[in-house]
Amino acid sequence: MGDIQKSSNIVWHEAQVSRDMRENMNGHQGAVLWFTGLSGAGKSTLAHAVEERLHRMGVRTFVIDGDNVRHGLCADLSFSDADRVENIRRVGEVAKLFVQAGMLTLTAFISPFRADRNQVRHILGDDFIEVYCNTPLDVCESRDVKGLYKKARAGEIADFTGISSPYEAPEHAEISVNTGEDSLDDCVEQVLAYLQAKGVIGNV
Amino acid sequence: MGDIQKSSNIVWHEAQVSRDMRENMNGHQGAVLWFTGLSGAGKSTLAHAVEERLHRMGVRTFVIDGDNVRHGLCADLSFSDADRVENIRRVGEVAKLFVQAGMLTLTAFISPFRADRNQVRHILGDDFIEVYCNTPLDVCESRDVKGLYKKARAGEIADFTGISSPYEAPEHAEISVNTGEDSLDDCVEQVLAYLQAKGVIGNV
Repeated sequence: MGDIQKSSNIVWHEAQVSRDMRENMNGHQGAVLWFTGLSGAGKSTLAHAVEERLHRMGVRTFVIDGDNVRHGLCADLSFSDADRVENIRRVGEVAKLFVQAGMLTLTAFISPFRADRNQVRHILGDDFIEVYCNTPLDVCESRDVKGLYKKARAGEIADFTGISSPYEAPEHAEISVNTGEDSLDDCVEQVLAYLQAKGVIGNV
Repeated sequence: MGDIQKSSNIVWHEAQVSRDMRENMNGHQGAVLWFTGLSGAGKSTLAHAVEERLHRMGVRTFVIDGDNVRHGLCADLSFSDADRVENIRRVGEVAKLFVQAGMLTLTAFISPFRADRNQVRHILGDDFIEVYCNTPLDVCESRDVKGLYKKARAGEIADFTGISSPYEAPEHAEISVNTGEDSLDDCVEQVLAYLQAKGVIGNV
Protein backbone atom coordinates (compact mmCIF):
# COMPACT_ATOMS: atom_id res chain seq x y z
CA MET A 1 0.00 0.00 0.00
CA GLY A 2 2.89 2.38 -0.74
CA ASP A 3 3.16 5.05 -3.39
CA ILE A 4 0.30 6.67 -5.15
CA GLN A 5 0.41 5.92 -8.86
CA LYS A 6 -1.80 6.79 -11.78
CA SER A 7 -1.72 3.93 -14.21
CA SER A 8 -4.15 1.49 -15.69
CA ASN A 9 -1.36 -1.08 -15.68
CA ILE A 10 -0.85 -0.99 -11.94
CA VAL A 11 -0.94 -4.42 -10.31
CA TRP A 12 -3.92 -4.58 -7.99
CA HIS A 13 -2.83 -6.99 -5.28
CA GLU A 14 -5.61 -9.15 -3.84
CA ALA A 15 -5.98 -8.54 -0.11
CA GLN A 16 -7.81 -11.03 2.06
CA VAL A 17 -9.22 -10.77 5.56
CA SER A 18 -9.46 -14.36 6.77
CA ARG A 19 -11.81 -16.03 9.21
CA ASP A 20 -8.90 -16.45 11.61
CA MET A 21 -8.23 -12.71 11.56
CA ARG A 22 -11.87 -11.99 12.34
CA GLU A 23 -11.96 -14.55 15.16
CA ASN A 24 -8.80 -13.10 16.65
CA MET A 25 -10.37 -9.65 16.59
CA ASN A 26 -13.56 -10.95 18.17
CA GLY A 27 -11.90 -13.09 20.83
CA HIS A 28 -14.09 -16.12 20.11
CA GLN A 29 -14.72 -18.61 17.34
CA GLY A 30 -17.41 -18.63 14.71
CA ALA A 31 -19.91 -21.49 14.98
CA VAL A 32 -23.57 -22.33 14.37
CA LEU A 33 -25.97 -23.34 17.11
CA TRP A 34 -28.74 -25.10 15.19
CA PHE A 35 -31.85 -25.24 17.37
CA THR A 36 -34.33 -27.92 16.29
CA GLY A 37 -37.57 -29.13 17.83
CA LEU A 38 -41.35 -29.10 17.60
CA SER A 39 -43.39 -25.94 17.18
CA GLY A 40 -43.66 -24.47 20.68
CA ALA A 41 -40.63 -26.33 21.99
CA GLY A 42 -38.89 -23.05 22.79
CA LYS A 43 -36.28 -22.93 20.01
CA SER A 44 -36.56 -19.23 19.21
CA THR A 45 -36.93 -18.17 22.84
CA LEU A 46 -33.91 -20.20 23.89
CA ALA A 47 -31.85 -19.01 20.92
CA HIS A 48 -32.56 -15.37 21.75
CA ALA A 49 -31.88 -15.90 25.46
CA VAL A 50 -28.54 -17.55 24.65
CA GLU A 51 -27.75 -14.71 22.28
CA GLU A 52 -28.48 -12.10 24.93
CA ARG A 53 -26.12 -13.78 27.39
CA LEU A 54 -23.41 -14.12 24.74
CA HIS A 55 -23.82 -10.50 23.69
CA ARG A 56 -23.34 -9.36 27.29
CA MET A 57 -20.11 -11.40 27.27
CA GLY A 58 -18.91 -9.45 24.22
CA VAL A 59 -19.55 -12.24 21.73
CA ARG A 60 -20.58 -11.29 18.17
CA THR A 61 -23.89 -13.06 17.56
CA PHE A 62 -26.80 -13.26 15.16
CA VAL A 63 -30.06 -15.22 15.18
CA ILE A 64 -31.47 -16.46 11.88
CA ASP A 65 -35.09 -17.53 12.19
CA GLY A 66 -38.35 -17.52 10.31
CA ASP A 67 -38.96 -13.89 11.23
CA ASN A 68 -36.00 -12.54 9.30
CA VAL A 69 -35.83 -15.14 6.52
CA ARG A 70 -39.35 -16.02 5.42
CA HIS A 71 -40.16 -12.44 4.38
CA GLY A 72 -36.77 -11.87 2.79
CA LEU A 73 -34.27 -14.41 1.50
CA CYS A 74 -36.86 -17.18 1.33
CA ALA A 75 -39.91 -15.09 0.44
CA ASP A 76 -40.11 -16.95 -2.87
CA LEU A 77 -40.55 -20.31 -1.14
CA SER A 78 -43.82 -22.02 -0.23
CA PHE A 79 -44.30 -24.65 2.47
CA SER A 80 -44.20 -27.55 0.01
CA ASP A 81 -41.82 -30.40 0.80
CA ALA A 82 -39.31 -29.28 -1.84
CA ASP A 83 -39.43 -25.66 -0.73
CA ARG A 84 -38.98 -26.60 2.95
CA VAL A 85 -35.84 -28.49 1.98
CA GLU A 86 -34.61 -25.48 0.00
CA ASN A 87 -35.45 -23.16 2.90
CA ILE A 88 -33.25 -25.16 5.27
CA ARG A 89 -30.49 -25.45 2.67
CA ARG A 90 -30.37 -21.67 2.19
CA VAL A 91 -30.31 -21.06 5.93
CA GLY A 92 -27.40 -23.49 6.19
CA GLU A 93 -25.52 -21.68 3.43
CA VAL A 94 -26.16 -18.26 4.96
CA ALA A 95 -25.08 -19.59 8.36
CA LYS A 96 -21.85 -20.69 6.68
CA LEU A 97 -21.23 -17.14 5.46
CA PHE A 98 -21.84 -15.82 8.98
CA VAL A 99 -19.36 -18.33 10.39
CA GLN A 100 -16.77 -17.23 7.85
CA ALA A 101 -17.49 -13.71 9.06
CA GLY A 102 -16.51 -14.85 12.57
CA MET A 103 -20.00 -14.69 14.06
CA LEU A 104 -21.50 -17.06 16.58
CA THR A 105 -24.70 -17.77 14.68
CA LEU A 106 -27.91 -19.20 16.08
CA THR A 107 -30.72 -20.62 13.94
CA ALA A 108 -34.24 -21.52 15.06
CA PHE A 109 -36.23 -23.69 12.67
CA ILE A 110 -38.33 -26.79 13.32
CA SER A 111 -36.18 -28.56 10.69
CA PRO A 112 -38.00 -31.86 11.35
CA PHE A 113 -36.12 -34.11 8.93
CA ARG A 114 -32.76 -35.73 9.70
CA ALA A 115 -31.75 -35.63 6.04
CA ASP A 116 -32.15 -31.84 5.92
CA ARG A 117 -30.25 -31.28 9.16
CA ASN A 118 -27.54 -33.66 7.97
CA GLN A 119 -27.24 -31.66 4.77
CA VAL A 120 -26.58 -28.56 6.87
CA ARG A 121 -24.13 -30.54 9.03
CA HIS A 122 -22.34 -31.46 5.82
CA ILE A 123 -22.26 -27.81 4.68
CA LEU A 124 -20.93 -26.58 8.03
CA GLY A 125 -18.72 -29.46 9.16
CA ASP A 126 -17.26 -28.99 12.64
CA ASP A 127 -18.93 -25.59 12.93
CA PHE A 128 -22.35 -27.25 13.24
CA ILE A 129 -23.70 -27.66 16.78
CA GLU A 130 -27.13 -29.29 16.85
CA VAL A 131 -29.26 -28.23 19.82
CA TYR A 132 -32.27 -30.46 20.33
CA CYS A 133 -35.04 -28.62 22.14
CA ASN A 134 -36.67 -31.71 23.59
CA THR A 135 -40.16 -30.71 24.67
CA PRO A 136 -42.73 -33.55 24.47
CA LEU A 137 -45.52 -33.10 21.96
CA ASP A 138 -48.22 -32.97 24.65
CA VAL A 139 -46.45 -30.09 26.38
CA CYS A 140 -46.03 -28.17 23.12
CA GLU A 141 -49.67 -28.79 22.30
CA SER A 142 -50.87 -27.70 25.74
CA ARG A 143 -48.84 -24.47 25.42
CA ASP A 144 -50.02 -23.84 21.83
CA VAL A 145 -48.83 -20.23 22.02
CA LYS A 146 -49.75 -19.49 18.41
CA GLY A 147 -52.91 -21.63 18.29
CA LEU A 148 -51.36 -23.72 15.54
CA TYR A 149 -51.88 -27.13 17.15
CA LYS A 150 -55.60 -26.44 17.49
CA LYS A 151 -55.79 -25.57 13.82
CA ALA A 152 -53.73 -28.61 12.87
CA ARG A 153 -56.01 -30.90 14.89
CA ALA A 154 -58.99 -29.34 13.12
CA GLY A 155 -57.35 -30.18 9.80
CA GLU A 156 -56.86 -26.53 8.90
CA ILE A 157 -53.07 -26.88 8.51
CA ALA A 158 -51.69 -29.64 6.30
CA ASP A 159 -48.45 -31.47 7.12
CA PHE A 160 -48.13 -29.99 10.59
CA THR A 161 -45.07 -31.35 12.37
CA GLY A 162 -46.00 -33.69 15.23
CA ILE A 163 -49.63 -33.97 14.13
CA SER A 164 -49.81 -34.84 10.46
CA SER A 165 -46.11 -34.87 9.58
CA PRO A 166 -43.28 -36.57 11.51
CA TYR A 167 -40.61 -34.96 13.64
CA GLU A 168 -37.42 -36.98 13.41
CA ALA A 169 -35.61 -36.35 16.69
CA PRO A 170 -31.81 -35.97 16.52
CA GLU A 171 -29.91 -39.15 17.39
CA HIS A 172 -26.56 -37.53 18.06
CA ALA A 173 -27.26 -33.89 18.90
CA GLU A 174 -24.29 -32.07 20.36
CA ILE A 175 -26.63 -30.55 22.95
CA SER A 176 -30.01 -31.85 24.12
CA VAL A 177 -32.02 -29.65 26.45
CA ASN A 178 -35.22 -30.50 28.27
CA THR A 179 -37.02 -27.37 27.21
CA GLY A 180 -40.26 -28.90 28.47
CA GLU A 181 -39.05 -29.26 32.08
CA ASP A 182 -36.05 -27.07 32.76
CA SER A 183 -36.09 -23.33 33.28
CA LEU A 184 -34.87 -21.01 30.56
CA ASP A 185 -31.85 -20.14 32.72
CA ASP A 186 -30.96 -23.81 33.08
CA CYS A 187 -31.16 -24.37 29.35
CA VAL A 188 -29.07 -21.28 28.61
CA GLU A 189 -26.40 -22.50 31.05
CA GLN A 190 -26.25 -25.90 29.36
CA VAL A 191 -25.64 -24.32 25.97
CA LEU A 192 -23.00 -21.92 27.34
CA ALA A 193 -21.24 -24.77 29.15
CA TYR A 194 -20.99 -26.67 25.88
CA LEU A 195 -19.57 -23.65 24.04
CA GLN A 196 -16.96 -23.16 26.75
CA ALA A 197 -16.00 -26.84 26.86
CA LYS A 198 -15.61 -26.86 23.07
CA GLY A 199 -13.51 -23.71 23.21
CA VAL A 200 -15.84 -21.63 21.03
CA ILE A 201 -15.96 -18.98 23.76
CA GLY A 202 -13.63 -18.39 26.68
CA ASN A 203 -14.53 -18.87 30.33
CA VAL A 204 -15.96 -15.44 31.06
CA MET B 1 -32.91 -14.15 34.73
CA GLY B 2 -33.40 -14.81 38.49
CA ASP B 3 -34.41 -18.00 40.27
CA ILE B 4 -34.02 -21.45 38.89
CA GLN B 5 -37.37 -23.10 38.47
CA LYS B 6 -38.50 -26.44 37.17
CA SER B 7 -41.83 -25.97 35.51
CA SER B 8 -43.33 -26.45 32.12
CA ASN B 9 -45.52 -23.44 32.80
CA ILE B 10 -42.68 -21.02 33.26
CA VAL B 11 -42.98 -17.87 31.16
CA TRP B 12 -40.12 -17.78 28.71
CA HIS B 13 -39.48 -14.09 28.19
CA GLU B 14 -38.35 -13.14 24.70
CA ALA B 15 -34.92 -11.48 24.78
CA GLN B 16 -33.70 -9.45 21.84
CA VAL B 17 -30.28 -8.19 20.87
CA SER B 18 -30.92 -5.27 18.55
CA ARG B 19 -28.91 -3.86 15.68
CA ASP B 20 -28.22 -0.77 17.80
CA MET B 21 -26.72 -2.91 20.55
CA ARG B 22 -24.45 -4.64 18.05
CA GLU B 23 -23.38 -1.35 16.47
CA ASN B 24 -22.60 0.11 19.89
CA MET B 25 -20.45 -2.92 20.68
CA ASN B 26 -18.65 -2.64 17.34
CA GLY B 27 -18.12 1.11 17.43
CA HIS B 28 -19.37 1.60 13.87
CA GLN B 29 -22.55 1.28 11.85
CA GLY B 30 -23.71 -1.55 9.67
CA ALA B 31 -23.97 -0.73 5.95
CA VAL B 32 -23.56 -2.28 2.51
CA LEU B 33 -20.96 -1.13 0.00
CA TRP B 34 -22.37 -2.44 -3.29
CA PHE B 35 -19.55 -2.54 -5.87
CA THR B 36 -20.81 -2.63 -9.45
CA GLY B 37 -18.99 -2.46 -12.79
CA LEU B 38 -17.80 -4.41 -15.80
CA SER B 39 -15.92 -7.67 -15.57
CA GLY B 40 -12.30 -6.69 -14.90
CA ALA B 41 -13.22 -3.26 -13.56
CA GLY B 42 -11.65 -4.08 -10.20
CA LYS B 43 -14.75 -4.59 -8.05
CA SER B 44 -13.53 -7.58 -6.08
CA THR B 45 -9.98 -6.30 -5.72
CA LEU B 46 -11.16 -2.92 -4.48
CA ALA B 47 -13.73 -4.48 -2.13
CA HIS B 48 -11.09 -6.69 -0.54
CA ALA B 49 -8.61 -3.81 -0.30
CA VAL B 50 -11.22 -1.63 1.42
CA GLU B 51 -12.07 -4.52 3.72
CA GLU B 52 -8.43 -4.98 4.71
CA ARG B 53 -8.10 -1.31 5.62
CA LEU B 54 -11.35 -1.37 7.58
CA HIS B 55 -10.34 -4.54 9.40
CA ARG B 56 -7.07 -2.91 10.49
CA MET B 57 -9.21 -0.07 11.86
CA GLY B 58 -11.16 -2.58 13.97
CA VAL B 59 -14.28 -2.54 11.78
CA ARG B 60 -16.31 -5.76 11.50
CA THR B 61 -16.46 -6.55 7.79
CA PHE B 62 -17.44 -9.23 5.31
CA VAL B 63 -17.20 -9.49 1.52
CA ILE B 64 -19.95 -11.32 -0.37
CA ASP B 65 -18.92 -12.16 -3.92
CA GLY B 66 -19.26 -14.83 -6.56
CA ASP B 67 -16.57 -16.94 -4.90
CA ASN B 68 -18.53 -17.56 -1.71
CA VAL B 69 -22.06 -17.42 -3.13
CA ARG B 70 -22.13 -19.18 -6.49
CA HIS B 71 -20.97 -22.51 -5.02
CA GLY B 72 -23.19 -22.21 -1.96
CA LEU B 73 -26.32 -20.14 -1.46
CA CYS B 74 -26.87 -19.67 -5.20
CA ALA B 75 -25.48 -23.01 -6.40
CA ASP B 76 -28.97 -23.87 -7.71
CA LEU B 77 -29.01 -20.86 -10.04
CA SER B 78 -27.92 -20.77 -13.67
CA PHE B 79 -26.83 -17.69 -15.62
CA SER B 80 -30.22 -17.21 -17.28
CA ASP B 81 -31.78 -13.76 -17.04
CA ALA B 82 -34.27 -14.85 -14.39
CA ASP B 83 -31.61 -16.60 -12.33
CA ARG B 84 -29.28 -13.61 -12.49
CA VAL B 85 -32.07 -11.45 -11.09
CA GLU B 86 -32.66 -14.01 -8.33
CA ASN B 87 -28.93 -14.18 -7.60
CA ILE B 88 -28.76 -10.44 -7.00
CA ARG B 89 -31.98 -10.49 -4.97
CA ARG B 90 -30.61 -13.17 -2.63
CA VAL B 91 -27.33 -11.33 -2.21
CA GLY B 92 -29.31 -8.21 -1.30
CA GLU B 93 -31.34 -10.13 1.27
CA VAL B 94 -28.25 -11.75 2.80
CA ALA B 95 -26.55 -8.36 2.90
CA LYS B 96 -29.58 -7.09 4.83
CA LEU B 97 -29.10 -9.83 7.43
CA PHE B 98 -25.42 -8.90 7.74
CA VAL B 99 -26.36 -5.25 8.25
CA GLN B 100 -28.80 -6.23 10.98
CA ALA B 101 -25.90 -8.15 12.50
CA GLY B 102 -23.99 -4.86 12.62
CA MET B 103 -21.46 -5.72 9.93
CA LEU B 104 -20.01 -3.39 7.32
CA THR B 105 -20.74 -5.60 4.33
CA LEU B 106 -19.14 -5.36 0.88
CA THR B 107 -20.54 -7.04 -2.23
CA ALA B 108 -18.80 -7.47 -5.57
CA PHE B 109 -21.05 -8.42 -8.49
CA ILE B 110 -21.24 -7.01 -12.02
CA SER B 111 -24.97 -6.41 -11.36
CA PRO B 112 -25.35 -4.71 -14.77
CA PHE B 113 -29.04 -3.80 -14.62
CA ARG B 114 -30.38 -0.72 -12.87
CA ALA B 115 -33.62 -2.46 -12.03
CA ASP B 116 -31.79 -5.20 -10.11
CA ARG B 117 -29.61 -2.74 -8.22
CA ASN B 118 -32.64 -0.60 -7.45
CA GLN B 119 -34.39 -3.66 -6.05
CA VAL B 120 -31.46 -4.10 -3.67
CA ARG B 121 -31.55 -0.40 -2.85
CA HIS B 122 -35.20 -0.85 -1.97
CA ILE B 123 -34.41 -3.86 0.24
CA LEU B 124 -31.61 -2.04 2.08
CA GLY B 125 -32.85 1.56 2.15
CA ASP B 126 -30.35 4.01 3.64
CA ASP B 127 -27.92 1.18 4.31
CA PHE B 128 -27.24 0.83 0.56
CA ILE B 129 -24.10 2.54 -0.74
CA GLU B 130 -23.59 2.03 -4.46
CA VAL B 131 -19.93 2.08 -5.54
CA TYR B 132 -19.51 2.42 -9.28
CA CYS B 133 -16.18 0.97 -10.42
CA ASN B 134 -15.90 3.06 -13.55
CA THR B 135 -13.32 1.42 -15.77
CA PRO B 136 -13.90 1.91 -19.52
CA LEU B 137 -14.70 -1.20 -21.51
CA ASP B 138 -11.50 -0.97 -23.59
CA VAL B 139 -9.38 -0.95 -20.43
CA CYS B 140 -11.24 -3.96 -18.99
CA GLU B 141 -10.91 -5.76 -22.29
CA SER B 142 -7.20 -4.99 -22.58
CA ARG B 143 -6.63 -6.32 -19.05
CA ASP B 144 -8.80 -9.41 -19.66
CA VAL B 145 -7.38 -11.08 -16.55
CA LYS B 146 -9.60 -14.14 -16.87
CA GLY B 147 -9.57 -14.31 -20.67
CA LEU B 148 -13.34 -13.87 -20.71
CA TYR B 149 -13.48 -10.95 -23.15
CA LYS B 150 -11.53 -12.94 -25.72
CA LYS B 151 -14.00 -15.79 -25.38
CA ALA B 152 -16.96 -13.40 -25.52
CA ARG B 153 -15.60 -11.78 -28.71
CA ALA B 154 -15.22 -15.26 -30.18
CA GLY B 155 -18.88 -15.91 -29.41
CA GLU B 156 -18.06 -18.59 -26.84
CA ILE B 157 -19.87 -16.80 -24.01
CA ALA B 158 -23.45 -15.65 -24.55
CA ASP B 159 -24.82 -12.46 -23.00
CA PHE B 160 -21.44 -11.20 -21.84
CA THR B 161 -21.77 -7.81 -20.18
CA GLY B 162 -20.25 -5.03 -22.29
CA ILE B 163 -19.96 -7.22 -25.39
CA SER B 164 -23.27 -8.93 -26.07
CA SER B 165 -25.30 -7.68 -23.11
CA PRO B 166 -25.58 -4.10 -21.83
CA TYR B 167 -24.05 -2.60 -18.70
CA GLU B 168 -26.33 0.09 -17.33
CA ALA B 169 -24.04 2.49 -15.49
CA PRO B 170 -25.35 3.95 -12.21
CA GLU B 171 -26.83 7.42 -12.56
CA HIS B 172 -26.73 8.36 -8.90
CA ALA B 173 -24.07 6.15 -7.30
CA GLU B 174 -23.10 7.27 -3.81
CA ILE B 175 -19.46 6.70 -4.79
CA SER B 176 -17.93 6.64 -8.26
CA VAL B 177 -14.28 5.63 -8.56
CA ASN B 178 -12.08 5.76 -11.64
CA THR B 179 -10.80 2.23 -11.24
CA GLY B 180 -9.35 2.44 -14.74
CA GLU B 181 -7.05 5.39 -13.95
CA ASP B 182 -6.54 5.81 -10.24
CA SER B 183 -4.32 3.66 -8.06
CA LEU B 184 -5.84 1.12 -5.71
CA ASP B 185 -4.79 3.26 -2.74
CA ASP B 186 -6.53 6.29 -4.20
CA CYS B 187 -9.74 4.34 -4.72
CA VAL B 188 -9.62 2.91 -1.20
CA GLU B 189 -9.18 6.40 0.23
CA GLN B 190 -12.20 7.67 -1.68
CA VAL B 191 -14.40 4.91 -0.26
CA LEU B 192 -13.11 5.42 3.29
CA ALA B 193 -13.63 9.18 3.02
CA TYR B 194 -17.27 8.60 2.08
CA LEU B 195 -17.81 6.21 5.00
CA GLN B 196 -16.32 8.75 7.41
CA ALA B 197 -18.33 11.65 5.98
CA LYS B 198 -21.53 9.61 6.26
CA GLY B 199 -20.66 8.65 9.84
CA VAL B 200 -20.61 4.90 9.18
CA ILE B 201 -17.13 4.73 10.67
CA GLY B 202 -15.32 7.20 12.92
CA ASN B 203 -12.30 9.26 11.94
CA VAL B 204 -9.61 6.75 12.82
